[in-house]
Amino acid sequence: MTSPVETIQSVQLNKEDELILLDQTLLPNKKVFLHLSTIKEIWDAIYHLKVRGAPAIGIAAAYGIYLETKKSKAVTFTGLYDDFQKNKQYLASSRPTAVNLFWALNRMEERLLKETEKSITEIKNALKEEAEKIRMEDELVCRSIGEHALSLLKPGFGILTHCNAGTIATAKYGTALAPIYLGKEQGYEFKVFADETRPLLQGARLTAWELQEAGVDVTLICDNMASIVMKEGKVQAVLVGCDRVAANGDTANKIGTSGLAILAKHYQIPFYVCAPLSTVDIECDTGDDIPIELRNPDEITKSWYEKPMAPKNVKAYNPAFDVTDHELITGIVTEKGIAYPPYKDSLINLVKQVR
Amino acid sequence: MTSPVETIQSVQLNKEDELILLDQTLLPNKKVFLHLSTIKEIWDAIYHLKVRGAPAIGIAAAYGIYLETKKSKAVTFTGLYDDFQKNKQYLASSRPTAVNLFWALNRMEERLLKETEKSITEIKNALKEEAEKIRMEDELVCRSIGEHALSLLKPGFGILTHCNAGTIATAKYGTALAPIYLGKEQGYEFKVFADETRPLLQGARLTAWELQEAGVDVTLICDNMASIVMKEGKVQAVLVGCDRVAANGDTANKIGTSGLAILAKHYQIPFYVCAPLSTVDIECDTGDDIPIELRNPDEITKSWYEKPMAPKNVKAYNPAFDVTDHELITGIVTEKGIAYPPYKDSLINLVKQVR
Repeated sequence: MTSPVETIQSVQLNKEDELILLDQTLLPNKKVFLHLSTIKEIWDAIYHLKVRGAPAIGIAAAYGIYLETKKSKAVTFTGLYDDFQKNKQYLASSRPTAVNLFWALNRMEERLLKETEKSITEIKNALKEEAEKIRMEDELVCRSIGEHALSLLKPGFGILTHCNAGTIATAKYGTALAPIYLGKEQGYEFKVFADETRPLLQGARLTAWELQEAGVDVTLICDNMASIVMKEGKVQAVLVGCDRVAANGDTANKIGTSGLAILAKHYQIPFYVCAPLSTVDIECDTGDDIPIELRNPDEITKSWYEKPMAPKNVKAYNPAFDVTDHELITGIVTEKGIAYPPYKDSLINLVKQVR
Repeated sequence: MTSPVETIQSVQLNKEDELILLDQTLLPNKKVFLHLSTIKEIWDAIYHLKVRGAPAIGIAAAYGIYLETKKSKAVTFTGLYDDFQKNKQYLASSRPTAVNLFWALNRMEERLLKETEKSITEIKNALKEEAEKIRMEDELVCRSIGEHALSLLKPGFGILTHCNAGTIATAKYGTALAPIYLGKEQGYEFKVFADETRPLLQGARLTAWELQEAGVDVTLICDNMASIVMKEGKVQAVLVGCDRVAANGDTANKIGTSGLAILAKHYQIPFYVCAPLSTVDIECDTGDDIPIELRNPDEITKSWYEKPMAPKNVKAYNPAFDVTDHELITGIVTEKGIAYPPYKDSLINLVKQVR
């Protein structure tokens, strides 16, 4: 069976060597795929959040540096490397806080430096190959997370998710949504509840959109409705993505995640975090060591609204993430299997398999 | 000391016998007091939610029927009563689901029927007196709730509240916000966190506005940020209003309240419901007997937004209220004192004092 997300992959290279990017700033109102081939266009797409989600940004940057370096007129390795570095610096400035952007650009540079003895054409092909590899590896990691997570779910389950940890944030399957898409391929009939995820409404704009596009039964709720849908027996599992997992299993994710975990515990519903092992930071002992980004209060008081929805100059507190205590997490699903408490041991065993 | 809410009372009669109504539909962007004297204007104000909050609606209707009946040219009691009944029917159609509207109109009728032997002028004056009494009783009930609730709080407390249970929904002090205003009069320095309360944003538009107008330190948060502010030690008590309390203490209130109560229990923060005894329904055994209103999904997907913030035709689930289990409630604060568990006994003892 074709994957239900085949038609909504957010970042791909087509046969004409164009970067095909789903413009996420136009969702959910318009589904527009951009055809990009210049570094300026790709810089702009990252800067203006047309592409978002750590893996998707990394993939876009890898394709971007390949596409621009391909145009280099250099005839020596040194000349090509100079051009590469200029391109790298430029792309790196598009979103200076996106760790995955730097990771992808560094990986492209490492590959370049392995090919010093090759011809210019061969080096350019190697860059293309490396970018494709980055995309493919992400797809495989997500698919693997999806398979492990699917083993925890039964057909007909009601599943609650928060923010967007879906296909459009990654190469293909997403993380928390991966088991839902794999279940769809296999005929599972899940009923998904998507928290709208204030203040930026990623759940309403992105998750509800991509699940609907993929033909999944999705119902949008406000964040404060999670308790009632759980109480009414509509939810058998909570699946969320994550930004960073500490060695003890404490998990930073979009604001609101920790509250969901407390509700799930209260209603005795399993709460799973879906996390590529690259997000496990074993140097970070506990969630207390994870800094929480405070964002502009205007996102609460003004954004998306025709007119202000709060009094002028009212104080607003706008943390972008929160930390979910490991004691509230039933399991952490990675591409190498599921970690269960005590996470201090189980996580490190999984991390060892990939580092 | 003057009350901090003196300048934002939402429903009053002035010396010229005009109903002075704060137009809540213009908040928080404009503070406009309407001067109303015809029944059509008052019908319109109730219908279009310019006045909202059960007590405030009741008071507006009581003044409305007085103001219009005053204009009656009838010279006999029967003639006046006919006019009264036409006015009553008309006002009752302004918001057919508002229980307090009917309660107030019925009470005005009972008063009228007690005055059959009086002159037309005396009867009209009695109607004015009754409307003023309804307003004054609500003010006293709220003030009393505020005093009892204030005894539970200490200066400097961080207080989290949800939706709007404030001055503008009542004659003067509000219910859940009453102790905050009384504390302000007495120099307590509370730090209040107001949940924005999706989908209709009563917390952002109304609670944040009225607290700011009254000079109270208020910080607006999204509903999903309650967990982080509790975890960070910023909240020492949660205060909410309620729509209906069952005999066992189960409490129906704005959607999201039950989730807050679960979070408060997890973080060991006291959770208080502020409830006039008129909302205690001893005929209703438990929260399971309280029907939950399901509202238009458009409120989630469209309202307040310049453009739709969710995909077209996406399903959305929009319960307006939820029920908070009595086991999650630390105390129920009424005008006759605070009920503690087991509520089955404590609530009925308080109710007996007023019925």
